[in-house]
Amino acid sequence: MNVHKPIVTVAAEPIPGSRKVYAPGVLHPDLRVPFREVALHPSANEPPVTLYDSSGPYTDPDAVIDIDKGLARAREAWVMARGDVEVVQGREVKPVDNGNVSAERATPVFPNLPKVLRAKGGQAVTQLAYARRGIITPEMEFIAIRENQRREAAAEVLRDGEDFGASIPDYVTPEFVRDEVARGRAIIPANINHGELEPMAIGRNFLVKINANIGNSAVTSSMAEEVDKMVWAIRWGADNVMDLSTGRNIHNIREWIIRNSPVPIGTVPIYQALEKVGGVAEDLTWEIYRDTLIEQAEQGVDYFTIHAGVRLPFIHLTANRVTGIVSRGGSIMAKWCLSHHKESFLYTHFEEICEIMKAYDVSFSLGDGLRPGSIADANDKAQFAELETLGELTKVAWKHDVQTMIEGPGHVPMHKIKANMDKQLKACGEAPFYTLGPLTTDVAPGYDHITSAIGAAMIGWFGTAMLCYVTPKEHLGLPDRKDVKDGVIAYKIAAHAADLAKGHPSARAWDDALSRARFEFRWEDQFNLGIDPETARQYHDETLPKDAHKTAHFCSMCGPKFCSMKITQEVREYAAGLAPNEVDAGMAEMSEKFRETGGEIYVPAE
Amino acid sequence: MNVHKPIVTVAAEPIPGSRKVYAPGVLHPDLRVPFREVALHPSANEPPVTLYDSSGPYTDPDAVIDIDKGLARAREAWVMARGDVEVVQGREVKPVDNGNVSAERATPVFPNLPKVLRAKGGQAVTQLAYARRGIITPEMEFIAIRENQRREAAAEVLRDGEDFGASIPDYVTPEFVRDEVARGRAIIPANINHGELEPMAIGRNFLVKINANIGNSAVTSSMAEEVDKMVWAIRWGADNVMDLSTGRNIHNIREWIIRNSPVPIGTVPIYQALEKVGGVAEDLTWEIYRDTLIEQAEQGVDYFTIHAGVRLPFIHLTANRVTGIVSRGGSIMAKWCLSHHKESFLYTHFEEICEIMKAYDVSFSLGDGLRPGSIADANDKAQFAELETLGELTKVAWKHDVQTMIEGPGHVPMHKIKANMDKQLKACGEAPFYTLGPLTTDVAPGYDHITSAIGAAMIGWFGTAMLCYVTPKEHLGLPDRKDVKDGVIAYKIAAHAADLAKGHPSARAWDDALSRARFEFRWEDQFNLGIDPETARQYHDETLPKDAHKTAHFCSMCGPKFCSMKITQEVREYAAGLAPNEVDAGMAEMSEKFRETGGEIYVPAE
Repeated sequence: MNVHKPIVTVAAEPIPGSRKVYAPGVLHPDLRVPFREVALHPSANEPPVTLYDSSGPYTDPDAVIDIDKGLARAREAWVMARGDVEVVQGREVKPVDNGNVSAERATPVFPNLPKVLRAKGGQAVTQLAYARRGIITPEMEFIAIRENQRREAAAEVLRDGEDFGASIPDYVTPEFVRDEVARGRAIIPANINHGELEPMAIGRNFLVKINANIGNSAVTSSMAEEVDKMVWAIRWGADNVMDLSTGRNIHNIREWIIRNSPVPIGTVPIYQALEKVGGVAEDLTWEIYRDTLIEQAEQGVDYFTIHAGVRLPFIHLTANRVTGIVSRGGSIMAKWCLSHHKESFLYTHFEEICEIMKAYDVSFSLGDGLRPGSIADANDKAQFAELETLGELTKVAWKHDVQTMIEGPGHVPMHKIKANMDKQLKACGEAPFYTLGPLTTDVAPGYDHITSAIGAAMIGWFGTAMLCYVTPKEHLGLPDRKDVKDGVIAYKIAAHAADLAKGHPSARAWDDALSRARFEFRWEDQFNLGIDPETARQYHDETLPKDAHKTAHFCSMCGPKFCSMKITQEVREYAAGLAPNEVDAGMAEMSEKFRETGGEIYVPAE
Repeated sequence: MNVHKPIVTVAAEPIPGSRKVYAPGVLHPDLRVPFREVALHPSANEPPVTLYDSSGPYTDPDAVIDIDKGLARAREAWVMARGDVEVVQGREVKPVDNGNVSAERATPVFPNLPKVLRAKGGQAVTQLAYARRGIITPEMEFIAIRENQRREAAAEVLRDGEDFGASIPDYVTPEFVRDEVARGRAIIPANINHGELEPMAIGRNFLVKINANIGNSAVTSSMAEEVDKMVWAIRWGADNVMDLSTGRNIHNIREWIIRNSPVPIGTVPIYQALEKVGGVAEDLTWEIYRDTLIEQAEQGVDYFTIHAGVRLPFIHLTANRVTGIVSRGGSIMAKWCLSHHKESFLYTHFEEICEIMKAYDVSFSLGDGLRPGSIADANDKAQFAELETLGELTKVAWKHDVQTMIEGPGHVPMHKIKANMDKQLKACGEAPFYTLGPLTTDVAPGYDHITSAIGAAMIGWFGTAMLCYVTPKEHLGLPDRKDVKDGVIAYKIAAHAADLAKGHPSARAWDDALSRARFEFRWEDQFNLGIDPETARQYHDETLPKDAHKTAHFCSMCGPKFCSMKITQEVREYAAGLAPNEVDAGMAEMSEKFRETGGEIYVPAE
């Protein structure tokens, strides 16, 4: 087992029934691209199944996990090798960065801080800049290998989906990744100060990704809980994590999270900026916001949600809404705009923001501050006015070589979902869409992971590149560990259902392997291949706990006499005993020829 | 509290924050149509919200619940008043009906058996027969009132959905119900021997309904558990319950369930028939099956799943499937057909089956014995060959005045769902579709309530009339009480999301009332209006348990400073203080005129 300091404990254990494996690169042979490999029972006569694995070193029994040191920074060498960054002094951490927290309540400073890197001389050190110059970075090759899940380049693939005009290739090459990034159709959130990162891509021609939100609030939670939630979220499949902390200790908590995170970390910098002005939106200034961007960029945040589309002229469009403005960042900026009777400083200073982002390769997640917060408000003028503005800003960001994705709703009934995707693709030049749900009804507080997984699966199918999870606690309270898992799994299901429906060539093999295991009563394989092996096994064992039941040709749902799969197998065995031409010519025409089977076919119930 | 005998305890308690109310009929003034009424906080200045209520007398504090006596049989008088049925001796219960169970393991005989009714002289006593003759039955008026949820006939309704060619009226009249039943587009499952029934309709121009499966298996569970599960399922919103019991005591367990059920009960009679022949499919005969139909019809089963479309010539079409035949009934019949080299007796005796069904008004649920059991097998030849046959059989059933719905899949990726609905409507003359899920991926054992709620919501939107739930235990074991609730709620969400997307006029008011409560921080109203008030409240109270928090303008998710809804309300209050023309003319043009607000707006976190 791995070493843990008592201050933070995380779930650092292999996924039961899976093995951590790594694939090397070709262009960059030192890459170690991680996968989850599931070996099947010998009777399957099938090769192991390789699954996408976002869980980082925590599920590798050979990795030494020490939260106080943080993860190894393999990526630092790739960044340094490009020769376009330099070590800088970095901004000094001030008491206000942690909400002027008292000593006894303070989250400790992370003990193993890395040096701070920044682009030399105003260059863009972004994956977009490299891609446009034709450079295939290690990050790009890593992603190509990761997306293929060890399929052979020449392997035949089934492509029976409907992808609504996406351009998903049969096989992902590093050059394809480069090209998608260069076109702005995909982003690789990868701050040069996030050396711990295992790169991943967000784009509609790649596997659909999911994001999990963590973060304390002024009311509850702590650093140790948030680091644990991050590790827990990626264990179950979160591809990205947003730290939405808003209480005190915000700087230090973020440091612990980033230093221990193999997935991109996003934030909403206005939250910390607001803390710095004591929670008074009117007191926000461009200078405080700018300073916060630099603070977080130096820590290694991979993308910033910036609500620059909440413009003064759009605010009155929300006046007759049922639920007004439901984005925290959006409502803060609306407040600022109105009280100063001025255009948003995020909008007026947008090019300066780009200058900062490109020096660290922080990606934009252009926030939808005016997203609908109820079925009643879906697809209204306020929402779409903002979306048009986000399209404008995307072009500005691209001019500065800054990678950009666009946030989307929210609460949308099923029949209004597709319009969101279509408008976004058009308004934002195919920049990746990143949606929250959407929730397809408002009547189920306590179950919004389900109301929203429905909408998420659909919009993922239509082309959304990343789905931001919603937990059962949405609208009710801060999610705990169980909620994080429930939310992540609901969204992993939505994302995979979307991949299947798009006809993604990496998607179907997983379902088929599990279905064959199910049909052949390979119970262990069925559990191990599942999205959550522990829960599948536990549910099975509640009624049939014995080891013998793991090879039984039935479960407690139907019992031995009524198991359709068992009966079907008997039917097939029976048919296999017939002469080939009897079977092949079709059973209808030959029913007279069938002999009665004499075998003992049913096992008595007990 | 209500009286329970210790042998069976059920959840007989009001839904917290809701009141049971009843509406009378006009054509039939003695009707008592039940609703769940949620009164709102006085500050809302809104009338109470009326919700559809499937829970029966169990949630009525004025009802006397005595499981040993069963529910009151108000409907018996309606049936007798028609003058076309007679009391008959009824078939004698035989030991084999309960699997020859030994005395010490026997489920007791239900103590308060009703008389058995049957149509006089070969008449059809079905709602379809009455509808075709222009008769508006009490059942039809009951349903009309129920579907309108106490909306006024003249009330303005919002109809912004996409209904794919459905014919949903603004207001449901008894005549509309009659007409839909007469056309075969809706059914009212209502056996004349189910006097305890509160009638409901299944049809695509009505609210989308859900079914919960219960029933013991040879491996686990008992009568008391199954009766409790039935009551539990309808408490959370199940509109129908299927008793899929397959062990011993099957006759007696069913009696207890029906006598205590206000919702239609469906069964799969082949399960009991198979028990009668010791589990040997080859030993099944038409005579044993026919006797079982009569046995169950006399008890009051409202619909029978009959897999008459599993024809001999179709069986070989499943030979190359990944998961073969996954319907229990389908696999039993396939086995029978092959071993006897004969066409299915369900198909060859179909008209005789109709003769039995019409004498009790048992509805057909034409089973999809060849539904796909994996993503790989979706929409294949076997599945659609059977569907065409079900279309043929629908016309035969209609010729005999027997109400009919059609069962559908199963496991279908999102992009193949709509084809199922389109083909069903065409092949089956718009007879109601009743689907199991469909599951949109196979990779999540333990979470199939979610994989399938996605597909269920979509196919419900496209036109499916009733969604058969899937629980988290699917593929793993027999669902327990918790699984039943999880499954029902996931499906209630799917059904309501479908209603919203179809633009059903009864759907939106619920969401809007809850959204307003949310925006106005009426926490109690938000809980009470929820699909599961207990869970919503519990989740909220985990972090903010005090009574004072029930009026707080924030929750623990964001805390007081970051609550967007709170900030929006402040923005609106601010705007309200401006001169009307300043607001109306649009804020953009007048930003110079805005004054700074001086009020204390943020409450410090603590």
